[in-house]
Amino acid sequence: MFETTVDSAAVRLWEEWPALSTKKRVRRFKQLPRHEADDFFLSLEPREQTTLLLSLPQGEQRLWLRVLAPDDAVDVIQEAPTEERDRLLELFDETTRREVRALLAHSEDDAGGLMNPRFARIRPDMTVGEAIRYLRLQATSVETIYYVYVLDNDQKLQGVVSFRQLFQAAEDKLVHDIMVTDVVTVPEHMDQELVARLFQKYNVLALPVVDEGGKMVGIITFDDIADAIREEATEDIQKIGGVEALEAPYLTIAFRQLLKKRAGWLAALFLGEMLTATAMSHYQNEIASAVVLALFVPLIISSGGNSGSQATTLVIRAIALGEVRLRDWWRVLRREVGAGLGLGLILGSIGLARILLWQAIGGTYGVHFMRIALTVAFSLVGVVLWGSVAGSMLPFVLRRAGFDPASASAPLVATLVDVTGLVIYFTIASIVLRGVLL
Amino acid sequence: MFETTVDSAAVRLWEEWPALSTKKRVRRFKQLPRHEADDFFLSLEPREQTTLLLSLPQGEQRLWLRVLAPDDAVDVIQEAPTEERDRLLELFDETTRREVRALLAHSEDDAGGLMNPRFARIRPDMTVGEAIRYLRLQATSVETIYYVYVLDNDQKLQGVVSFRQLFQAAEDKLVHDIMVTDVVTVPEHMDQELVARLFQKYNVLALPVVDEGGKMVGIITFDDIADAIREEATEDIQKIGGVEALEAPYLTIAFRQLLKKRAGWLAALFLGEMLTATAMSHYQNEIASAVVLALFVPLIISSGGNSGSQATTLVIRAIALGEVRLRDWWRVLRREVGAGLGLGLILGSIGLARILLWQAIGGTYGVHFMRIALTVAFSLVGVVLWGSVAGSMLPFVLRRAGFDPASASAPLVATLVDVTGLVIYFTIASIVLRGVLL
Repeated sequence: MFETTVDSAAVRLWEEWPALSTKKRVRRFKQLPRHEADDFFLSLEPREQTTLLLSLPQGEQRLWLRVLAPDDAVDVIQEAPTEERDRLLELFDETTRREVRALLAHSEDDAGGLMNPRFARIRPDMTVGEAIRYLRLQATSVETIYYVYVLDNDQKLQGVVSFRQLFQAAEDKLVHDIMVTDVVTVPEHMDQELVARLFQKYNVLALPVVDEGGKMVGIITFDDIADAIREEATEDIQKIGGVEALEAPYLTIAFRQLLKKRAGWLAALFLGEMLTATAMSHYQNEIASAVVLALFVPLIISSGGNSGSQATTLVIRAIALGEVRLRDWWRVLRREVGAGLGLGLILGSIGLARILLWQAIGGTYGVHFMRIALTVAFSLVGVVLWGSVAGSMLPFVLRRAGFDPASASAPLVATLVDVTGLVIYFTIASIVLRGVLL
Repeated sequence: MFETTVDSAAVRLWEEWPALSTKKRVRRFKQLPRHEADDFFLSLEPREQTTLLLSLPQGEQRLWLRVLAPDDAVDVIQEAPTEERDRLLELFDETTRREVRALLAHSEDDAGGLMNPRFARIRPDMTVGEAIRYLRLQATSVETIYYVYVLDNDQKLQGVVSFRQLFQAAEDKLVHDIMVTDVVTVPEHMDQELVARLFQKYNVLALPVVDEGGKMVGIITFDDIADAIREEATEDIQKIGGVEALEAPYLTIAFRQLLKKRAGWLAALFLGEMLTATAMSHYQNEIASAVVLALFVPLIISSGGNSGSQATTLVIRAIALGEVRLRDWWRVLRREVGAGLGLGLILGSIGLARILLWQAIGGTYGVHFMRIALTVAFSLVGVVLWGSVAGSMLPFVLRRAGFDPASASAPLVATLVDVTGLVIYFTIASIVLRGVLL
């Protein structure tokens, strides 16, 4: 009776869903008993709700659209092709249509796009008893009755009471006397990332959204925010990996889209990386006289790239979580100079040991093995230090210039560091090996 | 009166907190008015609560510890140095101490470690009126009264009612007749990542945790899960960047720790990357006869690394979100063969165009420019295809072998692809340039 996964047709369908074709999805969905179909439909992602909906006859479309709360309905409308939107809007009842239209005017990623316009409201001059009876009337139409907002006649927010407070207060007390007036509100145009931080900061389950005139227009609940947190993390991860945010599941995004999202960045990085060929052609003579130098090129530039990836990833995430702010750049720089030196010394020592070991075993590097070993070791220190510094500072530079710091992808940093790493390596080589191999 | 950030001493302190020394933090905290200090203390991360607590006199430690719910108290105890834990435990009252000890026995990352053992409970044979009165008694001591669990005399979970349902039902109905018996429960040892997926799947604000015997032991609420989602995303991002999960904010983690978390992976990658030097030494003669080949080494291996980073990042995130499952590896492989070929052709064409252009302008590559250009172009197709395939399959291989797929960091994939990329490049070169330059 109590298992983790309740064994119902809906749950079985949910498990198999990703692997099914649209046609099979529709057929299986129609076979669900009505009460299970309800829950099932609500548990789908908006994108999938839309696809399913558009495959159903118009009468059923109306039925399912009306199951959705206005904020979820908006997501569905936004996923639909432009030419279908007006027709779908017509399927709502008058009130909902007005609400959905108002929400559609908002960006998907701001507070206005996340909020639900249906919230529990009472007036400040009600008694606790009246308020509870009034809430009983609203209970079926609002998302939550657990936070109750106190609005004056102009819809301006005067305060908030939790249902729990009402429930524990004496029946004849006035709402005005028990409400909390010190309310944290969200402006309707606030970005969802900042909204998520407010929830974290104040440890609340819901926040009211107000327009510029101070009128309360909706409520954002914790579950809206969890989706937002997940979405933002996905976008950041994809950007760090050097892909434009997909904005759709990997397996369902159209192949053309998948290619487009990746080709742009990859081609840009490739153009940047071409500078390595230019840089290396400057050292063509050095390579011709000491081919051994070429052998260590991949090792050295990739070490710079890897330390740069580490630094940039740590800093991007710390900025996203609000742990590091723009003005902390100096503290980050100091840490990274230290970390870069430390890591460079570690890799430099391993590199030195490796060359000396190979030399001892096979005489691989000839009589000048010591100078070669030192060239590689010094270059590693320089390149890893530079990688850590460049990787950690790039997100600050991007944020300062108005871009998303997450665009400082690991591949971008690696590319930057590759070109400069070559210059560091061959410069050190020309100093250490001058008059000997060069 | 209603702004986003309420202008209080607590909020000002919250803003400045990260930049303050521990000494200043304690002084400023003590200056807060009592009711603001309460909220402030609760809004801190467990790590910071612990540091603050340990800097206060014992009497105040008791006071602040008792402000915490048992699940939050556990986090604080876990952050404290081992030798302080028993002393801190002694500061709780008898009941809480027992609860905290029970929770401490759980891993931080499983359901038992996230749950709050205080939840609203009623018996199935109560009437709705009795249940509501009984809840009024519990309202101050439980985390939420909005989900009410129906337990029999053996503490076994029989069903659940939302407060809203109770509130709308007739007073003389029996709880037994209105409760939902089809309850999704969380086993106490379930990992937090799976718990987070259950919340997403069933769209609920709270889930009951049961032990192996079916006894209900606690409740997990949505806000616990939001923290878990954020934490998991941070760990994944850091692993993708090639760093062990820091488990502490970037600016506050001890420098030694920061170095340790990065040095391990960086050194391992370096050892792997050493194979590039070995691989290249096999082609030393080819490089000596055609130095021009060396010029394109960074360009070619980095293209493989970048396409591999893209593929691995996309697949890791899709697995973490549950969009892609182990058995989908074949569908992913097919997509990546397509994407790798497409992207390889794009980069190959750019590379070909670049060499032909330079040749037309400066005659850079001598009489055999066409063969060189073709070598580079074919190698790019091969390396990018291989990068996409290797990058996308590695997370599956790791998961299959029982590791975290996120360990397939972008740098690890780049390193793998670097070595094989060199082999691909020089093999193609030896075919295309045989008898001409080689």
